[in-house]
Amino acid sequence: MAESVQSAEPGIFEIMYSTRAMRRLKPDPIPEETLKKIVDAGIRAPSGGNMQDWAFILVRDTERKRFIRDYYWNTWQKIMGERGIPDGMPPSQQRMLGAAAHLAAHLDDAPVLLLACAKKESTPLAEMKNERANAAVIHGTIYPAVQNILLACRALGVGATLTTIHCLFEEELKKKFNIPDDMEVSALIPMGYPQGNFGPVSRAPVEEVIHWDMWDNRQS
Amino acid sequence: MAESVQSAEPGIFEIMYSTRAMRRLKPDPIPEETLKKIVDAGIRAPSGGNMQDWAFILVRDTERKRFIRDYYWNTWQKIMGERGIPDGMPPSQQRMLGAAAHLAAHLDDAPVLLLACAKKESTPLAEMKNERANAAVIHGTIYPAVQNILLACRALGVGATLTTIHCLFEEELKKKFNIPDDMEVSALIPMGYPQGNFGPVSRAPVEEVIHWDMWDNRQS
Repeated sequence: MAESVQSAEPGIFEIMYSTRAMRRLKPDPIPEETLKKIVDAGIRAPSGGNMQDWAFILVRDTERKRFIRDYYWNTWQKIMGERGIPDGMPPSQQRMLGAAAHLAAHLDDAPVLLLACAKKESTPLAEMKNERANAAVIHGTIYPAVQNILLACRALGVGATLTTIHCLFEEELKKKFNIPDDMEVSALIPMGYPQGNFGPVSRAPVEEVIHWDMWDNRQS
Repeated sequence: MAESVQSAEPGIFEIMYSTRAMRRLKPDPIPEETLKKIVDAGIRAPSGGNMQDWAFILVRDTERKRFIRDYYWNTWQKIMGERGIPDGMPPSQQRMLGAAAHLAAHLDDAPVLLLACAKKESTPLAEMKNERANAAVIHGTIYPAVQNILLACRALGVGATLTTIHCLFEEELKKKFNIPDDMEVSALIPMGYPQGNFGPVSRAPVEEVIHWDMWDNRQS
């Protein structure tokens, strides 16, 4: 019986292991119920003091998507122009950069641009005025929700990517979308049905990132 | 056929909807293979420029857990002493505070304290020296991994909670655990088999957090 319940939806590890950044998206619209389901999964994440100080703007309007695209593309070109592509960059990284450039140039083709917003000053720690602790609370609130959103997208066949370049034009973005002063735009997530296929993500072996009891101790 | 594959592991939405902060933990050890599986799920999360600039310290040693507990408990008491419990706090929030106080006092009873660390300066944006963009990259890297860790814990029956109070004694923590200067400790996650049961998380309705096309527009 439990089995029939579980088989109705994709498995958690299967999804986590194949939630790849999808940067080439089809313009086909995403049904509203799907969008709501995705955000509803997002807000199951924990939040500092369970205050749920977050907001999610779903941008579908063509003119508004173009506004974001123009700033994003200009910013992208500026960053890349200043940095260039280093000699000897591994092919996998070159492919990633190519896909990221494609996304930047075609951002307004995505049917939805999601802006994940967080309250700048954490409610539970407001009186402490400690910047480091505040950042940990608000970013420890919004980015777990963002990860749930990416996983829910994947589970529902929607391609998505976490991007943060908009931080470099955040004030213009906030003005255009009427976002209150006390909120930050923490992530910009283009969403759409993918042109390519979902597939496994590649990572360094887990043994390289686990330290036992203290830094650099690899003996468990 | 696909069905039999999927039914072998719990469903993604089922897990996201029941990943509650578990603050009352049994001291029973967590098998090493389970710990590795949890961190391995963590590193499936995206990272800025796919740089994977993260590290995970799994603290099982009694003396080291006590060290963390003493700082954590002192910090907790200081925060609570300064703030106190506001009049008219809703019962659900009072229960949460009670459980959080229990956790603070008994932190060293958890079989594992996980320290999730991130590189302070994002590699992809290092030359830009833009603090806001840097914070978005590094926190948009480590907290999605933390969320995958919380979900993997839940899927494997391990209770866990995302905490950030350690930010207030981060330097002492880094010194004790020999953590390099260029890393921050982004989250402290006590892990253990739960005394209570997993259950649904309660949240404000999704309609309250979705804005269509611009801030405060609730008409889709």
